[in-house]
Amino acid sequence: MATDYELLTAETVPDYVSSMPNLADKVDASTLQAQEVGDGNLNLVFVARDAAGGGICIKQSLPYVRLVGEAWPLTPERVVAEARGYEAAREASPEDIPVVFGYDDSRYTLAMENLHDLVIWRTALNEGKMHPGVGAQMGRFVARVAFGTSLFSMDAGKLKERVAESINPELCKITEDLVFTEPYGDYDNNSVQPGVSSAVEQIQSDSELVANVGMLKAKFMTSAQMLLHGDLHSGSVMVTVDKPEPYGKVIDPEFCFYGPVGFDLGALFGNYLAASARAEALDRSEEFRAWVAQLPVETWQAFEAEMWKLWPNRTETLLTDEFLTLWLAEVLQDAAGFGGCKAIRRIIGLAKVSDIETLEGDAHVKAATAVLRVGARWIKERGLVSNSDQLLAIAAEELAQIRQ
Amino acid sequence: MATDYELLTAETVPDYVSSMPNLADKVDASTLQAQEVGDGNLNLVFVARDAAGGGICIKQSLPYVRLVGEAWPLTPERVVAEARGYEAAREASPEDIPVVFGYDDSRYTLAMENLHDLVIWRTALNEGKMHPGVGAQMGRFVARVAFGTSLFSMDAGKLKERVAESINPELCKITEDLVFTEPYGDYDNNSVQPGVSSAVEQIQSDSELVANVGMLKAKFMTSAQMLLHGDLHSGSVMVTVDKPEPYGKVIDPEFCFYGPVGFDLGALFGNYLAASARAEALDRSEEFRAWVAQLPVETWQAFEAEMWKLWPNRTETLLTDEFLTLWLAEVLQDAAGFGGCKAIRRIIGLAKVSDIETLEGDAHVKAATAVLRVGARWIKERGLVSNSDQLLAIAAEELAQIRQ
Repeated sequence: MATDYELLTAETVPDYVSSMPNLADKVDASTLQAQEVGDGNLNLVFVARDAAGGGICIKQSLPYVRLVGEAWPLTPERVVAEARGYEAAREASPEDIPVVFGYDDSRYTLAMENLHDLVIWRTALNEGKMHPGVGAQMGRFVARVAFGTSLFSMDAGKLKERVAESINPELCKITEDLVFTEPYGDYDNNSVQPGVSSAVEQIQSDSELVANVGMLKAKFMTSAQMLLHGDLHSGSVMVTVDKPEPYGKVIDPEFCFYGPVGFDLGALFGNYLAASARAEALDRSEEFRAWVAQLPVETWQAFEAEMWKLWPNRTETLLTDEFLTLWLAEVLQDAAGFGGCKAIRRIIGLAKVSDIETLEGDAHVKAATAVLRVGARWIKERGLVSNSDQLLAIAAEELAQIRQ
Repeated sequence: MATDYELLTAETVPDYVSSMPNLADKVDASTLQAQEVGDGNLNLVFVARDAAGGGICIKQSLPYVRLVGEAWPLTPERVVAEARGYEAAREASPEDIPVVFGYDDSRYTLAMENLHDLVIWRTALNEGKMHPGVGAQMGRFVARVAFGTSLFSMDAGKLKERVAESINPELCKITEDLVFTEPYGDYDNNSVQPGVSSAVEQIQSDSELVANVGMLKAKFMTSAQMLLHGDLHSGSVMVTVDKPEPYGKVIDPEFCFYGPVGFDLGALFGNYLAASARAEALDRSEEFRAWVAQLPVETWQAFEAEMWKLWPNRTETLLTDEFLTLWLAEVLQDAAGFGGCKAIRRIIGLAKVSDIETLEGDAHVKAATAVLRVGARWIKERGLVSNSDQLLAIAAEELAQIRQ
């Protein structure tokens, strides 16, 4: 595999920006200074500022998985999927994403608003900083995109065309392998610290668990409910620094495709869980621990409330209020299951999370073990979940082990 | 809407056949005699025989719904979907379908083996004729196509492309409207005999039922599990006449698209139910009534057994035997629900079934009412179904009213 397009560097970004007509009025390219800030697993990310304080962010797809290297090729066309994801989000809930200036399919770049006064939510969570209301904002965001891209509001024929044009096989394969398959078997990408091994063995030898993960994988692969973000963890959300009214911006929808609504919610739940385990392990303040612990409920209740708010605008006439009640109950169970899968993969498989990885010694072992136990229970007990509080109860039971 | 391609007549079929190179060796076109035999809702169907006893069947898509007329236009491109459905079936289970000679996308025709010694299964059922084993054959057929076209055996990337290229929006819309929406509301296409009205009112005012039909409609529209036949009722199966070893051939897969496995099974179940209600109403022999009544179990058990037989050949490595057990349990519940929807639409909505329509007076009212009641219970009680015998028990309770 050869890179047949030029990769940007901090030095070449200003010339690139000035060469793009659609970006000319966004910044003063003549005084632009860029730096590469990408800490993600897949792409180059440049932030550039001009002398007048204007800014722009340029994201360029690499033709391989950055985390692994050129041995794992990956289509740079994923920038098209990312642009599609941003466009759907812009139509449904523009305030929840950065302003996108456009994408360039010859260089596989996406140009957007520079969120220079925001930080990655995971970083803020790791540092013990609270952002009240962002969890609810995420729930509303998922609801708005779900409503706007689904059969609830879209003509059935148009919906089928959207599903067909939104397939994203290479990125989906990453999820299929890393989230669903590899944590449950003997794969080179897996690794844990020695103290966590017995908990991993318990996971991998639990045939009821593995069968249920299979059901969730099959649902991920076949249930085309909404145009998902596809990777909505706390590293895909940027949050304000020291604003009186905190808010978040969702970024990085390159995994977007038509999948089950519970998958985006579950991605949030699974990563909230990692943050909560860290908060317990580091003995954060009771206020912070309680706030992190309740995030799944905050997100779920906002999702549910927003769906009810949008519901009168549905165009699909058969569907009643009683239907929405049934549908929400199923989505909550899916979110519990996918949340468990997302939590487990972040402990066992490739692309671990700093929430847990930066913990040391006994704190790491206890936090990682508790996350695995909660994940397994969310998956296996999801059929009994009828209220988001039950997810917290399960988490609380297992996380209580961390501080003992 | 103009018909911009020439429609065939019995007189023009021989010339048409001789003009097609791929059909030249199938029959002697110079002695060919054709007749139009289509009794379906959508197409022209010609059966042609030559002097030597050779035969061919030509099906031509009309650019509208035949049952309704030119006021309901419909893409003749559906012949492409039909060819796709036959091809998938040929790969998975060739003995269960006629040999297809090819399709002609300029005239929207499909040419295939003439099944001159077979009759439509619904006709045979209506006449009280038994075809032991055909129900099991249908279950095996669905299993083979499900296995062959699903994530169980297909590369995940290829599967996504197949799903995308197999969308069939216009034909799916017919199902979405006629099977799921219209029977539950006030639509011009609906009609029942006066004696059935109160049972219809009960159906339409049952908010729990309508919400569950909504869940099934949403699943039909979003769950891309397998390349469905899409219209697998007893009128889409032809069966042998007086053969010592009866068998069937599946025809008419023009509604094919990627949908939930339970939908094809449910189509069979719902139509078996109509046949069973007729058998009760006409007081057929106990042997015949018992045979018709058990068809859902015969089909289900063969489906399940074939899935287990094929299972060791799966290529998706995460999925265990325990997974298949969970998956089959969900498919059975889906099949119960879709079976109920299929049964109800055939009583209330457009495109009724001769099984019930040709009954008169009290027999009609009792049979139609019983079918509605079983359908509603299959839908509402599907979450409790863990064994196909339970479907029979529900049916038996309600069908018992017919002969009282």
